[in-house]
Amino acid sequence: TSHHRIALIPGDGIGTEVIPAARRVLDTVAARHGLGFSYETFDWSCERYVSLGAMMPDDGLDRLRGHDAILLGAVGYPGVPDHVSLWGLLIPIRRGFQQYVNLRPIRVFEGVPSPLRDAAPGDVDLVVVRENVEGEYGEIGGRLGRGLPEEMAVQEAVFTRKGVTRVLDYAFSLAERRGRHLTSATKSNGIVHTMPFWDELVAERATAHPEVAWDQEHIDALAAKFVLDPRRFDVVVASNLFGDILSDLAAAVAGSIGIAPAANLNPERDFPSMFEPVHGSAPDIAGRGIANPLGAIWSAAMMLDHLGHPEAAAHVTDAIATVLAKTPVRTPDLGGTATTAE
Amino acid sequence: TSHHRIALIPGDGIGTEVIPAARRVLDTVAARHGLGFSYETFDWSCERYVSLGAMMPDDGLDRLRGHDAILLGAVGYPGVPDHVSLWGLLIPIRRGFQQYVNLRPIRVFEGVPSPLRDAAPGDVDLVVVRENVEGEYGEIGGRLGRGLPEEMAVQEAVFTRKGVTRVLDYAFSLAERRGRHLTSATKSNGIVHTMPFWDELVAERATAHPEVAWDQEHIDALAAKFVLDPRRFDVVVASNLFGDILSDLAAAVAGSIGIAPAANLNPERDFPSMFEPVHGSAPDIAGRGIANPLGAIWSAAMMLDHLGHPEAAAHVTDAIATVLAKTPVRTPDLGGTATTAE
Ligand SMILES: CC(C)[C@H](C(=O)O)[C@@H](O)C(=O)O
Ligand SMILES: CC(C)[C@H](C(=O)O)[C@@H](O)C(=O)O
Repeated sequence: TSHHRIALIPGDGIGTEVIPAARRVLDTVAARHGLGFSYETFDWSCERYVSLGAMMPDDGLDRLRGHDAILLGAVGYPGVPDHVSLWGLLIPIRRGFQQYVNLRPIRVFEGVPSPLRDAAPGDVDLVVVRENVEGEYGEIGGRLGRGLPEEMAVQEAVFTRKGVTRVLDYAFSLAERRGRHLTSATKSNGIVHTMPFWDELVAERATAHPEVAWDQEHIDALAAKFVLDPRRFDVVVASNLFGDILSDLAAAVAGSIGIAPAANLNPERDFPSMFEPVHGSAPDIAGRGIANPLGAIWSAAMMLDHLGHPEAAAHVTDAIATVLAKTPVRTPDLGGTATTAE
Repeated sequence: TSHHRIALIPGDGIGTEVIPAARRVLDTVAARHGLGFSYETFDWSCERYVSLGAMMPDDGLDRLRGHDAILLGAVGYPGVPDHVSLWGLLIPIRRGFQQYVNLRPIRVFEGVPSPLRDAAPGDVDLVVVRENVEGEYGEIGGRLGRGLPEEMAVQEAVFTRKGVTRVLDYAFSLAERRGRHLTSATKSNGIVHTMPFWDELVAERATAHPEVAWDQEHIDALAAKFVLDPRRFDVVVASNLFGDILSDLAAAVAGSIGIAPAANLNPERDFPSMFEPVHGSAPDIAGRGIANPLGAIWSAAMMLDHLGHPEAAAHVTDAIATVLAKTPVRTPDLGGTATTAE
């Protein structure tokens, strides 16, 4: 049997409720598919920050390094500023482990109505490939003249040939294995020096993937098309910020943020990759056992796929589709009365 | 009678078809409301660029300066790069005339179905207030090491206290006159130095507008909420890039980009303001007389309002609502067979 060491970081709020649910699914799958998992659970969280002054220990990344993958619940806690909880845990892992691909599949499932009139189950089946470690989000920038009339804040967006090329190659290869279509999100018609560079690199990498048909759309028009005609998309590749926006938008179009999964991948496998539901820690419903575990479970399926077990992964996503289509079992966010454990 | 000098810049493609339609409406309104308009038409366009090498003459802004308002159709032409057509005309006018508010009202009209299942006419009635001259779009940045493996492109986003404060004050004042609710688009949970500054200024300006209830949403979650629950929004204030994305998204939620208007305002009236439909030059349908003129006509109504004639403006928007609700007259983009002139 193939054995994997999984780091679990339940985090805060409903993160601590959905990770045990995902683990139960993993154990069931392990038994059926002849896999073995050992888990190490890390209590890194805002709660830890409040008592010990740090989201994770100084040697946090070193402790994770020996694992084959990381499954994260959610971080965030009323009273702990977002920049503490995120820069102190999520962002250092993404960046330190060069998880430069953020992958977010979106499907309209039977049994979960899309808010769009015309989006029937099966119609929408797309993946957003988001650049995850550079671009518009970064550490270069700051504030000048605090409190003065001439005060200003600046932020530098940095796009490198290496950083953009590798995520584009990932996206083109994914398109080769899926519907052979790629859409690049851009904004090269505005006053932005980085996006014409992005466009050039897309055109350059396209020549290495001739079987993939591709086009590009400005981010404003693309956001509109996600609502007007989401069927047309297969793989959508986008910068860090654009991908952040498009993936939440697409999850909304599919009817539920509670189901949406994400993978933070280091495709070279130099470091562990991290899997996490798109939803947050949801303090408003935390502790009641009613959080939707499907986002965490689908994230676990993406982890199975990454670990080299595509059949096991498909088994889980098929089970999600079956439960939604054929049973009334669903959590309150989807209009049901089920608990997380059910 | 009150008299106004209007600069018309039809531009390219369907811009040259919708501006004459808007002008006919303005003339009708002038007769009914005792107003006088004189027009000067400027042939600034990609066509001019192709024959003369520039979108507009060097003293273009000076020629516009004496006018009370500018009505623009659309610019863009196959073969002329966007950065030429936009940086050569639209952007210099917005920036040169300190049109720091980009105002985009969005309504779901009876007779124009929204792509959202639950958005009935009257349900959605919001305004996006976009900062229009600084922020993520700007001239600071560039490229290093062309063609080398270490090539990179950088873009500096610049947010100033003055620039942010004035657009926030505009948005809060608008909320005072409308539904008394304001939502600020932010992303202060990411690694972005500018957005915590934006948030501080929002909280600061809120104290000067105590009758307005306000909240803030991260741009990714906000884009999702525009699809999941657009009814809840009244005034949404956003940076240049976020406002660009949200306003196109909202126009899609309302069912048609062809109807959506925009105002580029210099609220102090030191310079003329500019009004333009959100749609582009649409080369694919240009020359056939079937473009939807409602975006340009609604933009003309916003111009009437800005010029101090709110009753005349309401007369035009009421007429748009009546035509859509009570007659079958609509252009092909809305499923009809009418021509632009009809
Ligand atoms: C064409 C482009 C430069 C422009 C912008 O981004 O400002 C457009 O998208 C708009 O919204 O008016
Ligand atoms: C919480 C935040 C920093 C994060 C991001 O923007 O990357 C989140 O929105 C996400 O998409 O994972």
